[in-house]
Amino acid sequence: MDLFNVITVADAKKKLSAYIESRTPETVPLLSALGRVLAADVKACEDVPGFHRSTMDGYAVKAQNTFGASETLPAYLDVVGQVQMGASPGGKIKDGEAWAISTGGMLPEGADAVVMVEYTEKLDDKTIGVIKPAAPGENVVRKAEDVPAGAVVLKAGHLIRPQDLGILAAAGVTGVPVLPRYKVGIVSTGDELVEPADVPGPGQVRDINSYTLYGLVQQAGGIPNLYGIAKDNFDVLKEKMSKALVENDIVLVSGGSSVGTRDVSAGVINELGQPGVLFHGINIKPGKPTIGAVVNGKPVFGLPGHPVSAMVVYNLLVNPLVRWGSYQNEGQNILVRAKITRNMRSAAGREDFLRVRVYVDKGELYAEPVLGKSGLISTMVKADGIARIPESREGVEVGEYVEVQLF
Amino acid sequence: MDLFNVITVADAKKKLSAYIESRTPETVPLLSALGRVLAADVKACEDVPGFHRSTMDGYAVKAQNTFGASETLPAYLDVVGQVQMGASPGGKIKDGEAWAISTGGMLPEGADAVVMVEYTEKLDDKTIGVIKPAAPGENVVRKAEDVPAGAVVLKAGHLIRPQDLGILAAAGVTGVPVLPRYKVGIVSTGDELVEPADVPGPGQVRDINSYTLYGLVQQAGGIPNLYGIAKDNFDVLKEKMSKALVENDIVLVSGGSSVGTRDVSAGVINELGQPGVLFHGINIKPGKPTIGAVVNGKPVFGLPGHPVSAMVVYNLLVNPLVRWGSYQNEGQNILVRAKITRNMRSAAGREDFLRVRVYVDKGELYAEPVLGKSGLISTMVKADGIARIPESREGVEVGEYVEVQLF
Repeated sequence: MDLFNVITVADAKKKLSAYIESRTPETVPLLSALGRVLAADVKACEDVPGFHRSTMDGYAVKAQNTFGASETLPAYLDVVGQVQMGASPGGKIKDGEAWAISTGGMLPEGADAVVMVEYTEKLDDKTIGVIKPAAPGENVVRKAEDVPAGAVVLKAGHLIRPQDLGILAAAGVTGVPVLPRYKVGIVSTGDELVEPADVPGPGQVRDINSYTLYGLVQQAGGIPNLYGIAKDNFDVLKEKMSKALVENDIVLVSGGSSVGTRDVSAGVINELGQPGVLFHGINIKPGKPTIGAVVNGKPVFGLPGHPVSAMVVYNLLVNPLVRWGSYQNEGQNILVRAKITRNMRSAAGREDFLRVRVYVDKGELYAEPVLGKSGLISTMVKADGIARIPESREGVEVGEYVEVQLF
Repeated sequence: MDLFNVITVADAKKKLSAYIESRTPETVPLLSALGRVLAADVKACEDVPGFHRSTMDGYAVKAQNTFGASETLPAYLDVVGQVQMGASPGGKIKDGEAWAISTGGMLPEGADAVVMVEYTEKLDDKTIGVIKPAAPGENVVRKAEDVPAGAVVLKAGHLIRPQDLGILAAAGVTGVPVLPRYKVGIVSTGDELVEPADVPGPGQVRDINSYTLYGLVQQAGGIPNLYGIAKDNFDVLKEKMSKALVENDIVLVSGGSSVGTRDVSAGVINELGQPGVLFHGINIKPGKPTIGAVVNGKPVFGLPGHPVSAMVVYNLLVNPLVRWGSYQNEGQNILVRAKITRNMRSAAGREDFLRVRVYVDKGELYAEPVLGKSGLISTMVKADGIARIPESREGVEVGEYVEVQLF
């Protein structure tokens, strides 16, 4: 690889973005919307709630009728009605009156507060004494306080969480406009690879990358499809990748990017369609020997064969596309800050990604680097996340804070 | 509710744990194992890798043959073979010899290092000059360095992540022993509730809790089943809950736990089987009016009707069961530390849970409380996580660090 041709992650994204087309949204039922990304703003058609609503069990009142009330001098009110749940009280409250009401009930017209039952004393069936004044609005959710009609309840580009299903339900949205799920074809290359079910012979190892990538795509909301192991042979690889390209929106080929085989991957990609390979090498460690390509509008990535490198590159370049549909729409990503437990060197001009085990000690978070070659999947298993050392730094010192992307 | 009967979250878990039975594990195919929890330790049958393996393209050598080599005085070696990928080199290296090898190739017997191709010069087809000494083990993954035969690669109770699929593949594990997925029946109660597809009339609101709970169960790896809205009527609720109890492992009923209706829920639960209601009220805010019960070995929860409270209680008491199968096996939970942006009061002797929006400013994480009644689902939508104020505290002051559980 020509060392002068490695580019930054930002430039890699820019090159790819020039060719990535936006895709047609789809509508899914509310109960299938968890983990999907909204394709359009969603608005509420009606006020939520559509009426002043009690948040307590007690009595709906005019607040001013309770002003000055105390245990020694209660405010006496006539109980003129009982609010039925899910129905209009069908009456208007007058001065000196109270309506019995349960949590969630609709306040009668003219009432502006609810006195908790604990702050009343029952004199007879028709009369209560209020022993504590209520402020206007007390124990009441006002009409439209949760969501006013016409308000955007969730914006396009929002990743749908459980509470978002709740607000969509509240707004009456039973069909949710979302980005389509990306289908991701996964091919592993390498004459030394065998399937997990096989017992490796001399010089052979089981395929790891197909399975970590399968999990990563699934976790990002994509649909992974495995195409198995292609031996390092131009025609075999071309056949598998052509098929994967027809059946998927993104294709990942791992392993074929080190000197021995990467020219095969790059050559195959360039034969599949236009524009082909866009870059070949990025200035990160691990993960340098990465191929970025677009073939007929579909992103194709040549990921490094080392399992740790493949995961790092997936997270940087592939995950944003699978999750958010583009590099521009990535949602807020909250990283944890942790103190690094040892000095780590890094070359300036290169982004370094450290595997770290994260633990808490006396209320402080620590990130302990998990050392080991990037060919060792066990190092990723021991780690809880990845810390990044920016290009501008030549390392981090023990006790310094680093930002960790947790797995 | 008798205020003196509220118990702590720890006590609530203890009471429930006494009745929760461990469940029979199941075996799933490797590709279905993401997000499941291992039910048994998993061991590797063979060494990974099963041989000394090159991590670079170059030449396999005896390291000692390169000691002292430099650009001015290269170490000259005879290239006696080329290692084929996925096969045994079938030869032994002798002093003064080198074998051409690619990344991932198997070192010939006797070789203990790989010289990168960049540090060699080719004199003729049969001879190279090494211009930099290689240390023993350099550019080599030793046999068993990733995983030794017989080692536990993942422990029982581990939540399976993408890289764990990778190490399972490497270890040849194609059937994975996991905890069964919990089926969770969800019932909402309230005469005021209507389905999301319906337009609420006066005094009516759409059901929110069924949908947030559906999402929460799904997110925790459980299988949610909705039983719709039960009006506040003993017989209707009993029929729905009996059915839910037969068809599920856990039953959640939301809304029926405030004064107006909670006695109905508690009464129904007690009629369904033994031991019935174990506690009624926990010392948290929001979420106090919570019912914990076990019926014939199955946990049943009466969650508060306010959507925020229902989510808080779900996360504390229900989520650990759905995710980990018990309160004892919860995995490590890494919280983010953020500075709170305003003073918040809290009653001593009560755990408070604050909805917070989390944002980064100049490298510092901040948690901004999202204020609003616990009946407002929109406050959960605006929040990024929940901060906890322990029972021992009477509040937090602006600038203090709080621990936030991100959504």
